[in-house]
Amino acid sequence: MRGCGMGGAAGVDLWMVGSIGIDDVETREAKRAELLGGSLPYATAAASFFARAGAVGVVGSDFPEAFERRWRAFGTDLSGVQHVPGATFRWAGRYEENMIDRTTLKTELGVFASFSPRLPEAYRAARYVLLGNIQPELQAHVLKQATGARFVALDTMNLWIGTARPALLKVLRRVDLLTVNDGEARQLTGLWNVCACAEALLKMGPSHVVIKKGEHGALLFSKTGGPFIVPAYPVRTLTDPTGAGDTFAGAFMGYLARARRVSGPVLREALLHASALASFGVEGFSLERLESLRAAEVAARVRALKRMIAV
Amino acid sequence: MRGCGMGGAAGVDLWMVGSIGIDDVETREAKRAELLGGSLPYATAAASFFARAGAVGVVGSDFPEAFERRWRAFGTDLSGVQHVPGATFRWAGRYEENMIDRTTLKTELGVFASFSPRLPEAYRAARYVLLGNIQPELQAHVLKQATGARFVALDTMNLWIGTARPALLKVLRRVDLLTVNDGEARQLTGLWNVCACAEALLKMGPSHVVIKKGEHGALLFSKTGGPFIVPAYPVRTLTDPTGAGDTFAGAFMGYLARARRVSGPVLREALLHASALASFGVEGFSLERLESLRAAEVAARVRALKRMIAV
Repeated sequence: MRGCGMGGAAGVDLWMVGSIGIDDVETREAKRAELLGGSLPYATAAASFFARAGAVGVVGSDFPEAFERRWRAFGTDLSGVQHVPGATFRWAGRYEENMIDRTTLKTELGVFASFSPRLPEAYRAARYVLLGNIQPELQAHVLKQATGARFVALDTMNLWIGTARPALLKVLRRVDLLTVNDGEARQLTGLWNVCACAEALLKMGPSHVVIKKGEHGALLFSKTGGPFIVPAYPVRTLTDPTGAGDTFAGAFMGYLARARRVSGPVLREALLHASALASFGVEGFSLERLESLRAAEVAARVRALKRMIAV
Repeated sequence: MRGCGMGGAAGVDLWMVGSIGIDDVETREAKRAELLGGSLPYATAAASFFARAGAVGVVGSDFPEAFERRWRAFGTDLSGVQHVPGATFRWAGRYEENMIDRTTLKTELGVFASFSPRLPEAYRAARYVLLGNIQPELQAHVLKQATGARFVALDTMNLWIGTARPALLKVLRRVDLLTVNDGEARQLTGLWNVCACAEALLKMGPSHVVIKKGEHGALLFSKTGGPFIVPAYPVRTLTDPTGAGDTFAGAFMGYLARARRVSGPVLREALLHASALASFGVEGFSLERLESLRAAEVAARVRALKRMIAV
């Protein structure tokens, strides 16, 4: 079990809500089916390199025991995962040669369609929270239960910006950090320039905004303190980019939870560690690379990233 | 006159060959005609913040005296610019809202079609050379005349990679640094992964490769020493991106010429200064922002860039 925690009663330093799924992924090189997927496994697995995370999600009766075992092996607490009759969320996608453009071949919500997140009592004291990409009303609902939350990050997607904007704006007022990609930042603000987007987003509630640019890195904007640009590690073996954003977000929050403080320098270190974790995750399908990844490799990659931006 | 030189007889520390043109540029915000353009004015103007550059190019009888005056005011030596009867190279383009995608509306080569670069005697001793984006055979031709050249950078474009590959590969064997964007790196190597591209390019002659990613920054790969990732400054006022790559390349070489040595740390500083200059250049049409730009502003922007990557 990686990570260590001084968190709440169940020992979680942070908890996350999101999706859990069974994925089929196709690239030009390979085709894999029935893979562990969804934002939660990636995010909590990445966090586990720094802190003990709890997962709040739902699976159906077809969720393989082997997945649960492998997921638990990261040290993630799964007491927040509901098991309900029905089908687990399933997603299938195919990546183009550039490994960026992808076509969704299948999205079957299954039990995820009626997901009502319930925060385990033992998670309520956790200070760090990652509200993964689910309907904004559900993010607000579960956040209400988080009496101990001190630093809350929220992730969203174009779908919710388009279909649930009022609910999203409402929950945004209550979070500390927002992560979006550049397209979503533009969609949410109606502005084009990334700095202008960040300025507008920082007026919507969060004190910090991370604008993710995929293989081009990410920018952190904060109400206090100048922007920070974290590069993406120039990955050599890009096998499966699925979940990279969730891996990034999870590692980021895990690092903050371990640091037990949020300051400019800590946020920067957290972003570098997030970039490092994401760069490993994409080297394999599903969580397979994270499963073999060792703390020393992460540290080496963070050092390599630092050398790449050192002047 | 900005910059200072300890270069050859005419006092140039470096010289550059490239295009000189009269541009019409259209964006969603504005439409400007008859602007000073071409790679040479941008590159030499940017270099002038660090060193005295000589320009090797050609203009027609319609090249405005006012353009020559404004260009000279940067401190650029224009004795390498041939004046021949005929029309100066003309280009017209229109940018989409994203200020990245652009449509070329007009390319009239004019006297540029029969350009045969001649290196002024006084430039031959200059150690630093930027072979701007012209036919590879012409780049080789003028390089032969550069007896004092010690550090040569070469820029090219998809057109030459596609139509003059053998000539390009031949001149590449004789240069120290290649700059290309990611698309050109892929086209030239037939590989997709940027690291793999860099590795292949470093076997073609250059000891260094700068892969430019436009608004996402640039990566420097060297035969010795690890990669360096320089971010693009998150520009607030993006008025006209024309010439940004040339501004970047010119500033880079100008900085090297001033430093009078090429080492890992110097290359990194050069890239940061290049990024800073390019971020100013795009704030105005043509060279207009560079004309009002002061050395103190450049220094402040370099400091800002360093703060953005400081851990």
